This record gives sequence, C-alpha cells and structure tokens, in this order.
Amino acid sequence: MPIDFRPSWMDEDLDTWRATVRRFVEAEMLPHDEEARKRGHVGHALWRKAGALGLLCADIPAEYGGGDGDFRHVAVLYDEMSRRALTGMNASVHSIVAHYILSHGTEAQKRKYLPRLASGELVGAIAMTEPGAGSDLQGVRTRAVKQGGHYVVNGSKTFISNGFLAELVLVVAKTDPEQRARGMSILIVETEGCKGYRVGRVLDKLGLKGQDTSELFFDDVQVPAENLLGGQEGQGFFQLMSDLPYERTIIGVIAAACMEGALEATLAYTRERQAFGKPLFDMQNTRFKLAEVASTTKAARVFVDHCVERLVAGTLDTTTASMIKLWASEQQAKVVDECLQLFGGFGYMNEYMIARMYADARIQRIYGGTSEIMKEVIARGL
Amino acid sequence: MPIDFRPSWMDEDLDTWRATVRRFVEAEMLPHDEEARKRGHVGHALWRKAGALGLLCADIPAEYGGGDGDFRHVAVLYDEMSRRALTGMNASVHSIVAHYILSHGTEAQKRKYLPRLASGELVGAIAMTEPGAGSDLQGVRTRAVKQGGHYVVNGSKTFISNGFLAELVLVVAKTDPEQRARGMSILIVETEGCKGYRVGRVLDKLGLKGQDTSELFFDDVQVPAENLLGGQEGQGFFQLMSDLPYERTIIGVIAAACMEGALEATLAYTRERQAFGKPLFDMQNTRFKLAEVASTTKAARVFVDHCVERLVAGTLDTTTASMIKLWASEQQAKVVDECLQLFGGFGYMNEYMIARMYADARIQRIYGGTSEIMKEVIARGL
Amino acid sequence: MPIDFRPSWMDEDLDTWRATVRRFVEAEMLPHDEEARKRGHVGHALWRKAGALGLLCADIPAEYGGGDGDFRHVAVLYDEMSRRALTGMNASVHSIVAHYILSHGTEAQKRKYLPRLASGELVGAIAMTEPGAGSDLQGVRTRAVKQGGHYVVNGSKTFISNGFLAELVLVVAKTDPEQRARGMSILIVETEGCKGYRVGRVLDKLGLKGQDTSELFFDDVQVPAENLLGGQEGQGFFQLMSDLPYERTIIGVIAAACMEGALEATLAYTRERQAFGKPLFDMQNTRFKLAEVASTTKAARVFVDHCVERLVAGTLDTTTASMIKLWASEQQAKVVDECLQLFGGFGYMNEYMIARMYADARIQRIYGGTSEIMKEVIARGL
Amino acid sequence: MPIDFRPSWMDEDLDTWRATVRRFVEAEMLPHDEEARKRGHVGHALWRKAGALGLLCADIPAEYGGGDGDFRHVAVLYDEMSRRALTGMNASVHSIVAHYILSHGTEAQKRKYLPRLASGELVGAIAMTEPGAGSDLQGVRTRAVKQGGHYVVNGSKTFISNGFLAELVLVVAKTDPEQRARGMSILIVETEGCKGYRVGRVLDKLGLKGQDTSELFFDDVQVPAENLLGGQEGQGFFQLMSDLPYERTIIGVIAAACMEGALEATLAYTRERQAFGKPLFDMQNTRFKLAEVASTTKAARVFVDHCVERLVAGTLDTTTASMIKLWASEQQAKVVDECLQLFGGFGYMNEYMIARMYADARIQRIYGGTSEIMKEVIARGL
Repeated sequence: MPIDFRPSWMDEDLDTWRATVRRFVEAEMLPHDEEARKRGHVGHALWRKAGALGLLCADIPAEYGGGDGDFRHVAVLYDEMSRRALTGMNASVHSIVAHYILSHGTEAQKRKYLPRLASGELVGAIAMTEPGAGSDLQGVRTRAVKQGGHYVVNGSKTFISNGFLAELVLVVAKTDPEQRARGMSILIVETEGCKGYRVGRVLDKLGLKGQDTSELFFDDVQVPAENLLGGQEGQGFFQLMSDLPYERTIIGVIAAACMEGALEATLAYTRERQAFGKPLFDMQNTRFKLAEVASTTKAARVFVDHCVERLVAGTLDTTTASMIKLWASEQQAKVVDECLQLFGGFGYMNEYMIARMYADARIQRIYGGTSEIMKEVIARGL
Repeated sequence: MPIDFRPSWMDEDLDTWRATVRRFVEAEMLPHDEEARKRGHVGHALWRKAGALGLLCADIPAEYGGGDGDFRHVAVLYDEMSRRALTGMNASVHSIVAHYILSHGTEAQKRKYLPRLASGELVGAIAMTEPGAGSDLQGVRTRAVKQGGHYVVNGSKTFISNGFLAELVLVVAKTDPEQRARGMSILIVETEGCKGYRVGRVLDKLGLKGQDTSELFFDDVQVPAENLLGGQEGQGFFQLMSDLPYERTIIGVIAAACMEGALEATLAYTRERQAFGKPLFDMQNTRFKLAEVASTTKAARVFVDHCVERLVAGTLDTTTASMIKLWASEQQAKVVDECLQLFGGFGYMNEYMIARMYADARIQRIYGGTSEIMKEVIARGL
Repeated sequence: MPIDFRPSWMDEDLDTWRATVRRFVEAEMLPHDEEARKRGHVGHALWRKAGALGLLCADIPAEYGGGDGDFRHVAVLYDEMSRRALTGMNASVHSIVAHYILSHGTEAQKRKYLPRLASGELVGAIAMTEPGAGSDLQGVRTRAVKQGGHYVVNGSKTFISNGFLAELVLVVAKTDPEQRARGMSILIVETEGCKGYRVGRVLDKLGLKGQDTSELFFDDVQVPAENLLGGQEGQGFFQLMSDLPYERTIIGVIAAACMEGALEATLAYTRERQAFGKPLFDMQNTRFKLAEVASTTKAARVFVDHCVERLVAGTLDTTTASMIKLWASEQQAKVVDECLQLFGGFGYMNEYMIARMYADARIQRIYGGTSEIMKEVIARGL
Repeated sequence: MPIDFRPSWMDEDLDTWRATVRRFVEAEMLPHDEEARKRGHVGHALWRKAGALGLLCADIPAEYGGGDGDFRHVAVLYDEMSRRALTGMNASVHSIVAHYILSHGTEAQKRKYLPRLASGELVGAIAMTEPGAGSDLQGVRTRAVKQGGHYVVNGSKTFISNGFLAELVLVVAKTDPEQRARGMSILIVETEGCKGYRVGRVLDKLGLKGQDTSELFFDDVQVPAENLLGGQEGQGFFQLMSDLPYERTIIGVIAAACMEGALEATLAYTRERQAFGKPLFDMQNTRFKLAEVASTTKAARVFVDHCVERLVAGTLDTTTASMIKLWASEQQAKVVDECLQLFGGFGYMNEYMIARMYADARIQRIYGGTSEIMKEVIARGL
C-alpha cells in the first residue's frame, strides 16, 4: 500500500487552492529556476505575478487585500515550492512581514502596506541580523534617532533574505540604547528612492542560489515617524517574539515537503537506474535506506501537521514550535543526505534536484534561530 | 511553558480509566516489581487481580467478558506500565491472543476462552518462533497431525513471552508440510494438565527480567480438533498477518511512554543532582541533550497518537504500522541511552529505573518483527 | 584478504605471553564465568591463581614481585578477557592500585604491598567515588583525621570495583577540609580484620554481572600513619591525576578487544544462521553492517595501538588518552549494538556473549571519567 | 597540551618539502582560488608552475622526470591543499595517471609521457565512468576497435576530473565486447589536436567549484596502437584494480587534512566570535562539540598515517584501503557538518572556508568508489 503523505489538514477547498499553486509553480517558477540561480534572484516580475494570482498573503484578511485564508493556504505554497527545491522566492519572509504589520501595525500602516504586499508590488524583507550579532538580538547596534517627524537610521545588516529585491524592509533598530529589550523598535522602510539606503553584495551562499540574501546599509536614512511599527517605541523585541510559532512552523513545513520531494525523486531514480544488471531499488541496501527515509519522512509529516493544525487553532506554543523547527530541520538534513548518496555521482550535479536540496537544506538548521537557540528555548520549557 | 505530552485521543472517560489503571499499577505492580525481576515472572496472582479489575481485554466486547472499550483503553494500560519500566506482565501478548480468538475463532471458541482470558483465569501466550526460524515464518517445523478427533502436536518453540505462566497457548504449527503459507494452522492449547507439554527454561535475558520468556516443548500433545482456531486448516499464516497493525502499534505506544518516563525521571534527577557546585540541569550540555530528547519524544508522541487514532478508526495500514514500530523503537533506544548517560554511575544501577529501561528497550527493535523485517515490509509499500 | 587486527606492538615474546594468558582465560575463567555472574564475584581463588601464574602486575618491576614487563603485557590480559566478555575480574583496577603504590609509595610501602598484589594475595581496589560526588573529586567528604600514630577515617564510598573481594583499598580522603585539591590524601587500608570497615551491598548493575562493585563504609577506621601513600599529606589529588593516561588507555584496550570479539562472533553467527533459505551473511544488509563494523573496529585497533605504543614510550599525553577513552568507548557501544541486532532474538539472551557485551559496554562511557568529563579535559587541550 | 596532529611519517626532509609545498599553495593557489571557482577550472598555467617546482609526480623515479620520492611526498601536497579547501587542481588523478603508466606502461610509454606529466606539460585525466554505468565497471560501452596501426574509439564518458584541461587521457574501453573483465583495455589519448575528441560541459557541481569535472566524447577518435597501455589487450580491468590502495589512501589523506583544517578554522572563529557576552568557545556546547570533533580528527589522523606507512612499505591491502576510504570520508562529512554549525549564518557563506569544505566533502563518499562499493569490497574481505 503506498504511503499516505497527504497532510491531515487538507480539505476540498485546499485541494483546489493547491492545484492553483501547483500550476503557478510549474509554469512560472520551475522553467526559470536555473536562470534565477545563475542571476542570484528571481526578479520582481515573478513576485508581481504571484501577487496577481493571490499567492502572497493568502492568510491576510480580505479587507487588507489578502486572501482571507489561514496558515494552511500559506503552507500549501511553501510545500509546493519546497518539494521541487524552489527556494529562490522567499515567500515566507514576505509573509512574516505582512504578519508583523497585521499584528502590530497601526490601522493606517495596515491599510497602506498590506494590499501592496499582497499584490507583490512591494517585496518584503526583515532586517534584523547584524554582522556582529547573530542569534543574539540584544547585540543590535543599528540606531534610530528621532529628529522631528523622522527617525534617522544608521547601521548595517547582513544575511537579509529578499534583500536585493526588497521594497519594504522592516528594520530592527535601537531607539533607546540605554535599555536592552525595551530599547528596540521596528521601522517600516520603503527602499524605492530612499536616500542613504544601500544594498550591498548579494551574498555568495552554499545553497539557496536563487535567493537574494544581501547586506543592507543605512547611512542617515530618514524614516517618517509614522512608520514606527505600531506607533510606540520600545516594542520591537516583543513584536519579534510574538510570531515565533508562525515562523518556526514554516520551517517545519518546508522540511517535510523537501523530504517528501527527495524521497519521491529518489524512488524514481533508483527504480530506473540499473546497476549490476538490475534496478538499484532491488538492492537490499537501497530498499532499507529508503524504508528508513520514508519512516522519518512520515514522522515529520505527522508532527508538522500537528503543529499546523494547532497554529491555525491558535494553540501552538513556542516550545513546541521550537521543537518542530529543531527536529524537522535535523531530519531533513539526514534524509536528503541519504537520498543524495543513492544517486551516486549524479547526486553531486546541480542538474539533479537532490544536489540543490542538499545545499539548501543546510541553512534550515541555522536561519530562523539556530538549532542551538532552539535547544535553549526548549530547555527553558522543560 | 511545560511540554504537553497528553495523547490527542484522551477524553474524560479515558481519564477516569487511566486513574484506575494508575492506581493498580502503583499499588499492585510497582511494589512487587523487584521481587518479580528476581523470580523471573510476576506470578499468576497479579494476572487474576488485573483481570478482576477489568484491566485485561479492555477492548473485547462485553458479551465475551471484555471491557467493551477500544484500543485506547488497552493503550492506557501499556502506557502506565511502560513509563514506570514495568515490563514483567506482558499484557500485550495476552491481548493479542484474545484478538486472534475474537477475529478468527469460532463462536464456540470465543464463548469458551474470551471470558477466561478477560478475567485473568487463563494467561495467554503465542507459540510462533522456533529455535531454527526467527522472523522467517515459513521455516516453522512444529507439526500438527490430525488423528481422529485430535491433532497430535510435536515440536519446540522458543522466545515465548508469558511462556512460564501461560495457561492458554496459541500454537503455530504445520498441518500440511507440503504447502508453505497455506500449510500453517493455529491450535488453541490449554496447558493445565496437558500431557506431553513441557515448559523449558525461563530464558536469561538482557532485560525484561520480570517477564517469563520461555522455551516450550510439545511431545505428542493431543489437542481436540475443535481447538483449531477458526475451525479450518491452513489459515494460520493469514490469521497471524491480519493483526499486524494492532501488534506494531502497541510497540509504538510502549516506546513513546517509555521515552516520556525516561525524560521525566532524568529531569528530576538532573535538577536535584549537584555537580561542580550547581545542579546538573544548569549545565548547557545537560539542557541541550534534554532538549533533543524532549523533541524526539514529542515527535514520537504525535506519531504514535496518529497511529492509535487510525487504529481505532480501522484505517491504519500495515506499512504505517511497520513504520511506527521501526521508528519509535529506534528513537526509544537513543532517548533512553542519552538519558542514562546523564545519570552517570547511577544510571548503571538497576535500582534506578533508567538502567532497567535501557536493558528493556533493546528488545523493542527485535521482537514483534525485527527492524530489518519492518524495513522489508515498508520497502514493499514504497 | 582477511582483516589484520594484530596489534602493531606485538612481538614474539608477547606471542608467548599471550598464549599463556589465553590458556588461563580459557581454562580458568571461561568455564566459571556463568557461576561468577550468578554469584556477583569471581572469588578469591581465581585471583590467587592468576597471581601465581604472574598474570597480575605484569608491568611491575621484578624486585617488587612483578613480571618486569611493560604495559603491553598488561594490555594482552585485558584484551584476552575483553574479547570473550569476561569482565568479572577487574584486573585493571588492581593494576592501577599497584601503579599508585609503585609511582607514589614510599620504599617501605612498595616492599610491603607490591609482592602481595602481584601474587594475588591481596585484591586491590580504589575507594574514590562517594554517593554525593560523582566525577567531581572536589566533593569528597570522607575524612581522615590524624590522631597519634593513626589516621581515623570516616565516610562512605560507592561504585567501588572489586569492592566485595578487596583486601587492600586505596581510600581517597580529606586530610585538610579547608583546602580543595591540596586537602586530599590517599590511605592504604588493609581490610582483613579491619575494625569499623564494612562492605555494603554488591550493587545490582545493568551489566558486569561477575564483578563485585560495592559500597564501602568507614566508621572510625584506624589506619597506621605509615600507610599514608607517599608519606606526605595533601598529595592525593596529584597522585590520582598522574596516572590518567594509563587508566584511560586501558579502557581503550578493552573497547578495541570487545569490538573485535563481537565482530568475530557475529561473523560466525551470520555465516551459520539461515534465514529465508540462505545464510544471514549473504544478505546485503548484513554484509554492509559488518563492513561498517569492521571499519570502525579497525580504526579503533589502530588508534588504541598508537596510544599503547606511546604509553610504553612514556610520551602519551592526557589529552590524547582522554580522546581514546571517549572515542573508543563510544565506538564500542555502536559496534556492539549493531552486532547484537544481527543476532535477532538470540542477541537478547545472556547465553549469547553479544548480549553480555552489550550490557557491559554501557559502563565504558561512564567509569574512569564519564564522556562528559573527557570532553571537558579535551576541550582544555584545544 | 595542544593536540598533536603531526603525521607519524613526517621527517626532516619532509618538513623541508612541506615548506616548499606550503609556499606554493599559499602564494600561487590561495589568492587565485576564488577566480578558479568562478571560472570552473584552475587554468593550465597553475599546472605548469606546479610541475616546474616538482610538485607533480613527486613519487615517480627521477629517471622518468619525477621527484624520486614516495607516497609521503604526494600526501604532503594533498594535505596542504585540502586543509585550505583548495580542491580545484585534482593532482591526485594526475598522479594516478602517472602511476598507471609507471606500473603498467611499456618502457617507451614511460619515457614518452612521464616526464611531460611531471613537468605539468600534460594534465592527466582518467576516462572511466560512463553516463549509463557508475560504479559498475562491467557496464563500460566505449569501444576501441583495432584498424591497422590504430584503435578507433567511440563512446562517451562523464564525471571526468580534470576533464576540461586534460591533455593526456587514459580511456577505459572495450576491446573485446564478448568478454567481461578481460575485454577491457586502457588507451593513452593525447587530446591536443585530437580529431573526434570533444569536451562537453564543465559540469555544474554541488562543490569542487574550481575543478573542471567534464563530459568527454569520442567520435571515431584514432589512437595509435602503441598507445595501448602496456601493449597488451584485455589488461584494462586488472590495471585499474592494481592501484586501488594508492587511490583510496589519497582520499583518506584528503579527509584527514580537511578535518584538521576545519577544526583549526572553527577553533579560531569560536574563540574570536562573541555571543551573549562571551566567546562562543566558552559555551559548554561549543567546547563539547569541538572535543568530539578533535577526537574523531585525531582517530582519522592515526588511521590515515597507518595506511600511508603501509602503502609506502608496500604492504597495504585493498580491504584496509577500502576501509580508510569509507571510514575517513564518513567522518569528514560529520566533522565538517558540526564545524559549519558553529559558524552560524557565516558558515553558509562561500566566503568562509567551512562552507566550501562542506560542499566539497560530499563528493568524498561518492568518487573513487562509493561508500556502497567500499562496503561490498570490505565484506568480501571478512
């Protein structure tokens, strides 16, 4: 009996939605992925098209231009991209930007920005990490000083996903350097024609070749005071903390879909590929490795579904979300590694999806909070 | 926030049931466990008491003397025993015996045996494995030859759980040695006063010290023809195959509960134990290891719950059941090993539960079909 | 070509020595091992016999009654016992006791005790660990107060190898509770007729069933002042630290020999055992697992030999010795686990050597300094 | 005490040699590596320079233009490159080409080609693998048909290291398709001006970015009959088999050096990098992970040295060589993965050596015979 990987939370409406997403992914993303990887970004046009089809901000209320769906709609998008190793368009960061605005923004901010994020007119990014401070938020040095009706922002950021294409950047800055957590605020920065704003290099990464991870520089950048997220200083840290379950579950969704895609591709390859007079799949080692891979993948599917359901119900706690982030990303690394091995030399060629999955998978244990940070968080929950 | 390990399938009725089970386990089993481990079995009295309280055969219909519950009731029993490392009474084999009779027995067989299994008057065992044939069912050599109104059984069995105390044994035997699968049948043997039946040694095992795993010998044992399970020859293999999801899920339930019990005990120990001037738990290595253990345990809890729910709903396929058996038993081994290490020298003392869990856990990857057999089965489902 | 596991440091003389050792092990230990495991100790007679044959203290100078050999002679003994899972007689602790006296004792102490240790007239033990202090030496609470020509010792010890049979115990005690390391001393205690000395329970352990690990109690025990090791107070900590490379290499030697013994037994078993119509060894999974096991075992053999050679040459540093202890014991655990699995149900029976090796192996990552302590030490050397 | 990773086989002469190699690597390779990785090859100039300095063919007799050294000289070169993640110039394949000619070539072939390989005038490659046949040598379809004084070669090859720059290619071809092993021969092909010879794409790989792995096509390529390696048909398979210990040990040497380089870089990074107010290295998790990494690395150093010494002595068997290939490449993958994690986001940037090491390491378990092939070979030796 074939293994059932259908997420528990799918229903008929979501089947229709998935069909839409899949068509887009196969028609608009897959054929251009190699090009995007060479260029280092997917281009603005793809974002606009995805927006036009309603693929961005699917879980934002209709009144703000969103799809009026919930996290499951968003999950379907990451799922369909991830199982095809399409990691160029970081729709999740974009989605998180929209969520920060939805959850913490003023009504004016919501009305002004959410529809443009939903349509893909603005590509979103979050500028949090700095060269000198990795997972340690307290180490942020970017300063935002209020002068009249503006904040003047100075500092530099790195590892910013969607950084090169970004048109709306949520900048995490210190508004009160005397204070720790309470000294941080988030500013909404429109990059179009923004003086003093500069995008540095598109970083040369191990994987995620089609994704424009960049450095950003802020040199006396003037941001209108009304662009302070939520309108109140010192809320940045708490705003960042409040959506952690959402962000961590996304990484779990990506991990599970990637494992399923890897398994499927490896099954196809080992069935077709002949060695020593029979298909690779007929060797006991191949079958046993794939049985292990399939079991891990099934466990991941079930655990991720559990988290998705609770996230939609509003009952997913940060500890469990940290567990899915930690655990699923570790499993993904192992599964993709085992699968790659079964491809032999072809597994090392970027032409084969499994090679790209291997390089892409490595970041999952690092971004969105490293495995070490997750362990700290989980231990606190024990 | 404390991690939530409550099974998804619990409800208020099951809470009441669990309280009953827990009281029994704590009052009747825990205080006598050391003694049982020294003796090599828990004694008939415990079985009778468990039966009297309705703990055995909780998922057998009331009309046959059972509890009229479902698999969840049974799961609660294994759960409460396993998290306390109480592995002497193999209630699961007993339960599987009852299920074979319920699913495949004639109406007369059900009426005759199920009430006595439910009351604990008869302790059940399954005599399948033979010295020369492990996981390979086709290698069974025990013969049952029909002579008049009886079958005459000859052969020997090994690794028989509950073997020493067993009063009702389902014996897998060849009724037609010319045929393979179709040549096998199951006979119901009452051992009380049974001529030619002999219990060999209680085997000296690595763990499961309180459980009476034994060799059984059949020397011209006469079994009434009406004790052929289901009344038709050649059905043995198919009868054995039909309950695999049930049996494999039990092993998953045991694994998850054992991990939770191990985690809880290790948390308590590392919080209390001082080293180098502070609690062990305050060391980063301890916290990180326990965060990993907790994440794996949570993943196991969710995957096992998934299988329990489907088993109750009648939709659990053999492939998924084989996955939970394979995967959960492997995780259990790793989790218990990591936990034991945090106890230092105390972890090696049988006085500490974690030491017994370590020895007991090792069998989970072997019995009920080895990990290798599971992989074969899963690969066939790919 | 068969794999060559012959230690690099063997030579013709050692071949002869090994033959002697092997004869003793096979004639005197193997046939009585089951009995020893039931009883919980090997008995004094075995120690005397081993001593008579020169097997104890092989690396102690002849002038003190020893064998005038070096560490290689000692290693051969542990090797021949360990590859047969004979762990009842803790000759290594005995040997370490002799070494403490040789390295730190006064001339009188050497003349008095070394010949009796060599002959097996005195079984040696080291009383270091206390119930409240595991790897943390600074936590020792046993007190030795000088009164006239005696020290009066009070305290309790646990996890003492050879504790039940011990006739000469090196007791680690605080002579100056005001000081930390410098407050510790070692006293030589003869237990025969010693007032106030009491052996507690032979501890019930996961494995090492034939070894008499015990609790020891000291209640106003009077020890002659001349039995202060080395004759100077406050040297205990440094005396304990000085022989660490010796002790840790022993654990490496045991690990490598155990892996080789496990591999050999598993090869024999899988070649003979039939499943599904052919020897287990002919299955690809079996062959691949054994190839992994053999590679790890070979790596261990080479690394251990490296350490043995340097130890004999006097150039083995504590960091490298800690590495062999950490690394080899971890590999041993994995290798024995993989091998056991290939035995199926038989691997869980104590009748099979592999089951005993599994239980015994678990202590190797704990005693002689846990893996965690080794990591601390190694990190300091980075 | 700092860990000693100095190879056991180094001596004063080799120290001098290593200094020469190191100067070259640091002056000529390191500054141009980024460029090479962008371009996909290191360029012919580097080969000529390395040749001029005597770095190529260091273990080929002086009478054939070589360095008159032994494998240790060669090992020093791979070591110095690998610990700096310099994998563009595949000097090992070049060296293996020279060895095939030295071991199996006619005197004329040796005189003609070895000096030009040693000087770097000819870059060497081996054309063995074909698109349809990975590790299965028997599946070779490239044909060489003798016509007069030439062989006419037709077929295609893939995954050919140094393929783009290659000027001398050893082509494995079928000379007698009726036979299996005995039907294979090796032809020496000079590619300069060779009609019908075509280099396909420089393959886009996961790692080894500076190395020109390519497809090669042979379309009625005429090869002079005297270029049949050794002058006798049907020897190809045996020629390929005879140097396996040499080839596999090289992969071990690369693995050990890479681990040492990774450890060193990670130590430096974690000592300098601050997080939560102190160096990363001061966290227990960092120290423990690095202690594990250092222990594995030390074990690898010792095992590799063992093989190098035996290879130089001419006593290294194929089974042990397969073990070092299998085992060291698996350890390398784990070590580099652990190290990368400690770099956090920087570990994912190709600017950091550890990121490139991660991508490069993945091929080590595949080329030169996959881990699966190694296991088959080792199992045969059991």
